Amino acid sequence: MKRTGILGPRGTHSEAAAVRLNELSAEKSELVILPEIFEVLSAVETGQLDAGFVPVENSLEGSVNITLDTLARSEELIVAREFVYPIHNQLMARRGVELSAVTKIFSHAQPISQCRKFLRENFPTAELITAPSTARAAELVAESAEPCAAICTERAGTLNGLEILAAEVQDNMANTTRFFEVRRRAENFAPENLDGDKALVICQIDGSRPGALCGVLEEFAWRRVNMTRIESRPARTGLGEYIFFFDLEVPAIKNLLFDAVEDVSRKSVWLKNLGVFPVINA
Amino acid sequence: MKRTGILGPRGTHSEAAAVRLNELSAEKSELVILPEIFEVLSAVETGQLDAGFVPVENSLEGSVNITLDTLARSEELIVAREFVYPIHNQLMARRGVELSAVTKIFSHAQPISQCRKFLRENFPTAELITAPSTARAAELVAESAEPCAAICTERAGTLNGLEILAAEVQDNMANTTRFFEVRRRAENFAPENLDGDKALVICQIDGSRPGALCGVLEEFAWRRVNMTRIESRPARTGLGEYIFFFDLEVPAIKNLLFDAVEDVSRKSVWLKNLGVFPVINA
Repeated sequence: MKRTGILGPRGTHSEAAAVRLNELSAEKSELVILPEIFEVLSAVETGQLDAGFVPVENSLEGSVNITLDTLARSEELIVAREFVYPIHNQLMARRGVELSAVTKIFSHAQPISQCRKFLRENFPTAELITAPSTARAAELVAESAEPCAAICTERAGTLNGLEILAAEVQDNMANTTRFFEVRRRAENFAPENLDGDKALVICQIDGSRPGALCGVLEEFAWRRVNMTRIESRPARTGLGEYIFFFDLEVPAIKNLLFDAVEDVSRKSVWLKNLGVFPVINA
Repeated sequence: MKRTGILGPRGTHSEAAAVRLNELSAEKSELVILPEIFEVLSAVETGQLDAGFVPVENSLEGSVNITLDTLARSEELIVAREFVYPIHNQLMARRGVELSAVTKIFSHAQPISQCRKFLRENFPTAELITAPSTARAAELVAESAEPCAAICTERAGTLNGLEILAAEVQDNMANTTRFFEVRRRAENFAPENLDGDKALVICQIDGSRPGALCGVLEEFAWRRVNMTRIESRPARTGLGEYIFFFDLEVPAIKNLLFDAVEDVSRKSVWLKNLGVFPVINA
């Protein structure tokens, strides 16, 4: 069976999403839990694991930087599948703890941001404590003697004996996370032979030339290749130097996409084509 | 004296940068320390403070999302000045603690990312604990009985009786942070009357139309208005809907900039002009 690394511990949104994707897939994975996104991707790069399943973007919070930065720096990784998964955050506490008594709230940094409005309105004076994952936050609440609460998945809370104090506490119901299943680039990797809905292209553009990014976008625009997303990350070589991530829809005439990528490559400092892949909805 | 809100506690990179900008400025500020970036910006919006000084981008880690998101959502805030400040991270511990004994490292999430390589190579098994600020991390280390260390400014460590275990631990010497001094929009706010080096424009573009972003960038490109940065953030209305931030150089013929912004405004769902402002280097 294929071995897929995921971000743990048990009870994180990542684990819940990975379990769901596994249910929907013909080829099943053994899910291997690792403590950090970086370790998941490294284990795929070195061949210790067949695949890695990592979050890439949340509809409220934006990009998961460590995922983008690692994909940009790797020569080995490609995207095999995209999975779109709705996120549900619960405020959970030990049995008997009352909402009004809560003075400390534990969670991962992303859910804290995703629930900013809820927290400001209901807990203006509570101390917000950042844990490495929502699952770890639930453990910390289970272990604490104080009247505290965690923002976590229902699964993480229940695994730790917690109960729901307030349900669906995210500020916005449009709270969805995109995940990538990442694999190692094969020796004869040829994106034009792949089938799928989307493509991911990463490149560094010389930002000191006015209109350089515009020139790149024109290659997609005149061929009517739809860009569903553009993201920039620092090139880490100095302020003002950026790497761009283009999410592209695969057009009916696939060659339009590959011609555009070739022309963009000529206008870039460097370019990586991470392949064409299917998008699966939860 | 003008009252300027900054991110505390004492000893953060933000405080060190604010103190430095104050030294360089003719008009001095009384620095008012607040615990969160959001509170700094809210206090400016409501008029409790005259100005706010907040980080907006780091050359290694990228954007400070809460700053961008708050600027995008506010009708009141404009950018008065930009300050470019180099960041120095130190690994600091209580006197007598040896490097090899350290099992726990406290810091803010951004320095932890900025020192990822250093940490992976020197502390592969240490527990990394995220604190609300580097200054708070230094306090936690000072209070702890365990052999732990903080990644913080030299100032924060010294304020807490810590000593340097390893100096300049950031992965990359090109570690610089951009800050904005933010003020309230005046009633007769007219960016075309302002003097400065750069402009910031924020707009939402209908991403469902292929080539929509390209059409916007063309307005800048054909007028040779140099875009030093483009950043996207989720519009929080659903996956695939984005707000764009354009950092623009003010051209010699200022009208080229304002004509471009007007044409971009026509092609956008909405647009906010946050003004023209000077850039100051530390």
